Amino acid sequence: MDVQEIDLGAVREQVDAVLEDFLTSRARVAAGRGHPIEVVNTVRDFLAAGGKRIRALLCVVGWHAAGGSEDRAAVLRVAASLELFVAFALIHDDIMDDSATRRGRPAVHRTLRARLGPSPRAERLGAGGALLVGNLALIWAQELLHTAALSVQRRRTVHALFDAMLEEVMYGQYLDVMGTGADDDIDAALQIVRYKTATATVERPLQLGAAVAGADDTTLGLFTELGLPLGEAFQIRDDLLDVFGSADGACAPGLGDLREGKHTVILARGLRAASAAQQRRLRHLVGRDDLDERGAGEVRAILEETGAREHTEHMITSRYEQVLRVLDASALPPAASRALHGLAVTATQYTS
Amino acid sequence: MDVQEIDLGAVREQVDAVLEDFLTSRARVAAGRGHPIEVVNTVRDFLAAGGKRIRALLCVVGWHAAGGSEDRAAVLRVAASLELFVAFALIHDDIMDDSATRRGRPAVHRTLRARLGPSPRAERLGAGGALLVGNLALIWAQELLHTAALSVQRRRTVHALFDAMLEEVMYGQYLDVMGTGADDDIDAALQIVRYKTATATVERPLQLGAAVAGADDTTLGLFTELGLPLGEAFQIRDDLLDVFGSADGACAPGLGDLREGKHTVILARGLRAASAAQQRRLRHLVGRDDLDERGAGEVRAILEETGAREHTEHMITSRYEQVLRVLDASALPPAASRALHGLAVTATQYTS
Repeated sequence: MDVQEIDLGAVREQVDAVLEDFLTSRARVAAGRGHPIEVVNTVRDFLAAGGKRIRALLCVVGWHAAGGSEDRAAVLRVAASLELFVAFALIHDDIMDDSATRRGRPAVHRTLRARLGPSPRAERLGAGGALLVGNLALIWAQELLHTAALSVQRRRTVHALFDAMLEEVMYGQYLDVMGTGADDDIDAALQIVRYKTATATVERPLQLGAAVAGADDTTLGLFTELGLPLGEAFQIRDDLLDVFGSADGACAPGLGDLREGKHTVILARGLRAASAAQQRRLRHLVGRDDLDERGAGEVRAILEETGAREHTEHMITSRYEQVLRVLDASALPPAASRALHGLAVTATQYTS
Repeated sequence: MDVQEIDLGAVREQVDAVLEDFLTSRARVAAGRGHPIEVVNTVRDFLAAGGKRIRALLCVVGWHAAGGSEDRAAVLRVAASLELFVAFALIHDDIMDDSATRRGRPAVHRTLRARLGPSPRAERLGAGGALLVGNLALIWAQELLHTAALSVQRRRTVHALFDAMLEEVMYGQYLDVMGTGADDDIDAALQIVRYKTATATVERPLQLGAAVAGADDTTLGLFTELGLPLGEAFQIRDDLLDVFGSADGACAPGLGDLREGKHTVILARGLRAASAAQQRRLRHLVGRDDLDERGAGEVRAILEETGAREHTEHMITSRYEQVLRVLDASALPPAASRALHGLAVTATQYTS
């Protein structure tokens, strides 16, 4: 059918231009009303610091896949909305985990804390300020969405999908935060991955783009089939990278998830496969705020020895293969199929 | 024109019924998808614990004032959306201030903290859980809003007003949290009142209801004229009640704002009118987490002696009179005018 490739680099630039235009308009309004313009700048800096824009790209690919040709401005707006939603979720996530950095810069609540200077209240107030910045990112995401030029019917579908995504992510995070499940429960860890990340990272963005193009339920269903394994693979890879870094050294192994005691699939698998002595060491080391490189090295060694790392790599591979099977069996336009294939490789192999 | 009064009691019941229906549907969906239904129940309990529903009532009165007659289901949905927005804002507010109680019950983050049991992480995780509950309240507020049955044009106006309100409140809270203004700056304190409360409590709810009825700019402008003095009076009264309680004893004087060191108008006025010795005492006592009844008594005495309390009462009265002048000069339907008059008395004299 089509011979042209989808130029993902160009899409990314267009999405960033929509974000920039929108934030410039928010800054202008804030300046006119005496509102604190630094909030807009904080969100702008957060977006400028990086991010793969994977959700925005998937949204536009979903639109192509569903035969989108008109409504390009609308789909770019929905795609940009997804990136503001990501900013909201990550800014709040970093508050909840008290993460020091994000995308190589201090996390927003840490930046605001530092701005308040040495005060016993700076920690609480910095977190409060970041909470509000995150809220505004969500409010703006919704504004971008409901000001997209869509017919009544498509607008309704887009909103329903977006609302479902927001609920899934919030519930997933809630389970993660308030969860009292066993730390060696792989299914529980996968459920959190599914709610918190898998649908929001791949399935919903693809569906949102497709809905802008007026896709039918078959296409939306195909994206569920595709989105779950790809989203899970993406998140499991992300968790592996956090602990082990990337083979090419672009991503250094870290202490973040281990200190936080995050209920990841690899950790659950490690605990499940470990000897009693190894289990005691893992439970002693993981979740300590003062875990050091040496302790992390010990954790990594146990995750290797128990085969947990290898097993988790297999989980990624089998999901990636599942994605390929679904893609091959689908009747998607070839350019969209190729773009999805490429994004699947990016999402499961690398990070940045 | 009309002889019938607006039955605010009935309106309140109808708004609560919309909220109950909506939350029941969210609970059903959550149960079906294995989502944590306790989040829905937490929001439901929060709403059931009380609240005057002043914003919802003003919204429906605004609709009446603008000649609303059809679209009753739509205006009730918008009114209910405002109450979910309030729940969101208060749940987050209580996290930021680490308030112990709200509406006579433990604040949401305290309830969740207690549920986690004695753990060094319970404080952080409880705050995280409440953050997410608050986010869902906002997400649901937006869902109620964009699923209201409105024409394209009215929907656009309603969304624009709602977005403006959300921005104003977030910016106002941000200034409050991150603000470094002088503590005796009455104008700065009033500016925070204006952004954080005045518009969101009165002006925007009235305008939102009016917009559902397709009001023109004259009516929307009238509600700005009315909303600012009434909203300010409402918030200044709220601040006074927090420090001094109510004359009838229904509201006991508290330590909340004084311990938090909230930049209220009465405190700014007290500092401005105080002697150097009194200023030192105020600055020593206010903002201490360990402020006790005796210290609070000293603060109250200074606020009386300096005339700050009396001055602040005058500020409320002059705003109330301004509201009456605007109402008298307006051509609002008499029933709407009388309802607004009644709500103005409620908002500036009592609380619950």
